[in-house]
Order: sequence, then structure tokens, then C-alpha cells
Amino acid sequence: MNFEQLAEATKSQMPAKRWNHTLGVVSSAVELAKRYGADPGKAELAALLHDYCKFWPIEEQRSAYVAEGLDPELLEYDPQLLHGPVAAEIVRKRHGIEDAEVLDAIRYHTSGRERMTLLDKVVCLADYIEPGRDFPGVHNIREIAEHSLERALVAGFDSTIRFLLEKGKKVYPLTVRARNALIDEAKRPQS
Amino acid sequence: MNFEQLAEATKSQMPAKRWNHTLGVVSSAVELAKRYGADPGKAELAALLHDYCKFWPIEEQRSAYVAEGLDPELLEYDPQLLHGPVAAEIVRKRHGIEDAEVLDAIRYHTSGRERMTLLDKVVCLADYIEPGRDFPGVHNIREIAEHSLERALVAGFDSTIRFLLEKGKKVYPLTVRARNALIDEAKRPQS
Repeated sequence: MNFEQLAEATKSQMPAKRWNHTLGVVSSAVELAKRYGADPGKAELAALLHDYCKFWPIEEQRSAYVAEGLDPELLEYDPQLLHGPVAAEIVRKRHGIEDAEVLDAIRYHTSGRERMTLLDKVVCLADYIEPGRDFPGVHNIREIAEHSLERALVAGFDSTIRFLLEKGKKVYPLTVRARNALIDEAKRPQS
Repeated sequence: MNFEQLAEATKSQMPAKRWNHTLGVVSSAVELAKRYGADPGKAELAALLHDYCKFWPIEEQRSAYVAEGLDPELLEYDPQLLHGPVAAEIVRKRHGIEDAEVLDAIRYHTSGRERMTLLDKVVCLADYIEPGRDFPGVHNIREIAEHSLERALVAGFDSTIRFLLEKGKKVYPLTVRARNALIDEAKRPQS
């Protein structure tokens, strides 16, 4: 299956409006990969597939998550966190995607994790700042993204955490750990 | 050593201005204990001792923390988190406080924890809302405290987390877990 066929298969999983979001993430991820020295081909592939399962009914996402035997702790948090880990398993099985870096970038694109790889960071940040995004603070994150991947991602996670506090929702501890690790990284002198 | 002697010993550990804060926490903790059915005597004792080590030099707090063999993860976070766990150990050794509930309420009064006891909640919330406190949102927390210990504490932790985001500081994951657990508790029908 070539890239165009994979794109068609992905497009068929979501409403037209959200396909535009995927295309935006692909374009931003490739740009960020070039800026920060990640592999643009892997960034393009992970970005294409990151929301593969996002528009499946939540119950279907949850069943797939449980069937794959993934960490049950996540089930106690916002169901918006399911689609990343589920997509990583599904695209491996359906489309033979075996690149562990690409699968991890898909898996952790919403939650983040400690010790995020360069590719994880690129895809996660592209998802925050693709051209179609419009939420309070997005301009600020785009500006920071011009010079620091880590600080831009901290600002992205800050906006997610503030949103959850505002709504009285629980915060997934892995996201807090991801943000903490990025703060430490951003302070370290760059090699 | 009676309560007055213990109060004198505690007073001698801190500047006069902060002793007023301790007296405020004692008064709020006793009030909250009566309102929500915790033991007022234990609330008074834990509140009296909660900041016993807060005005020790940070290096002294850190040495005591390490000497007691406490969880090294906390050392990666804001040093403001040290004084609770250190005080629990110190008042046990110096003043023979052996009540595990009182010691836990002292230990977790800043961070919170999962499965907070009624006494933990009372002391932690009293520390947020004692009459001398004045920070954005404190009036709101005092109002919520009239009818829900859990919801008031969630609002307290929200203010702490927002402050840390604002300052670009790391957030201690146990505090997020404490807040998550309180959200679940507040949703459960009261027995």
C-alpha cells in the first residue's frame, strides 16, 4: 500500500472537516521535522495516521483498547485519550506499519510521555499548531515553536491542563510527567 | 508536654508573622473538623504542627528529608513540598507525637495524596482558607468549603496547579492524583 492508498484509507475513517485537520498536521509535522532535525518521512506518516481512530464511536475505541490489553489506568481518564494508543495498534495490524518510532509518535500524540522522542514531540506539537487550529493561546505556541520544540510543547500541555481544570475534569498524570520532563529538558544546555 | 508548651515550641520555629498563619489554620481546621465530623482535637494538633519546619533553611529541610530516607522523587520538585514530610518526622522524634492520622495530615498537608483521610482534607483545606490568606480565588474556595470539603479542596489544588503553570514550574504528580481522586469522590453519592 503506497502513501496515497494509506491516505485514502485514513480519510475514509473520518468526517471531511477533520480530514482537513489531518492534512494540516501532516504539513506542520513535516515543517517542524525539517526545522528540528527529525525524519520528515516518518513525521509525515505518523501525522497522517495519528487520528485514524479518533472518530470511531467511543465504545468501539474502548473495546479495541481493552482487547489490546493496554494499561487500564488510562480508562479512568478522558476518553479523548483512547484514540492514540488504539490507532497505533490498528494501523500496525491493518496497514503493516511496523516502525516503532512512528507507532510511538501516534500512540503518545495526545498524552505525551516522559522521555518523548524528537518524533513524538514533532507530531504532538504539530497537532497543537496546525494552521486550522484556533484556541486561546495558539498564536503564542506557534511563536514559541519557531525557536523551541520543548517550550512550545510545555505551552501546549499548559493549555490542555488549564482546559481540564476549567472543566473540572481529571488530568492524566502522564501528561503532567511529560510536561515536567520537557521543563527539565528546556533548561538543559543544548548539545 | 502539654498543648501550650507544644505551641511555644512551634512558635519558636518561625517568624512572628507566620505564627499568625498557624493560629489561623488551627482555628479553621477546628471549624472544618466540627462541620465535617473529623476529630477536632486531632485537627487542632495537626494544624498547630503543620508548618513546624517551613521556615528552616531549605538545605536543612532537604538534609532532614534525605536523612529520613523519604521518597527521593519529591526532591525533583518545588522545595516548598519538603516541609510537610519533614515536620511529620521531626515532631514525632522531638515531641513524641505518635498518632498516625495526625502525622499523615501534617505529612500531606501541601501535596495531598490519593485516598486522603477526613483529617488530611481538613488540615489541607484549612491551610488554603485560614482567615489571613489572600490569593486570587480564595473567596470562592471559602464559599465552596461551606458545603463540600472535596470540591473546596479541588478548587484549592486548581489554584496551586494554575500558579505552577503560570510560573513555568513542574507540578508534583501526587497533587494531580490527589485532585483526580477528590473529583471522583465528589461525584459519588454521599453515604
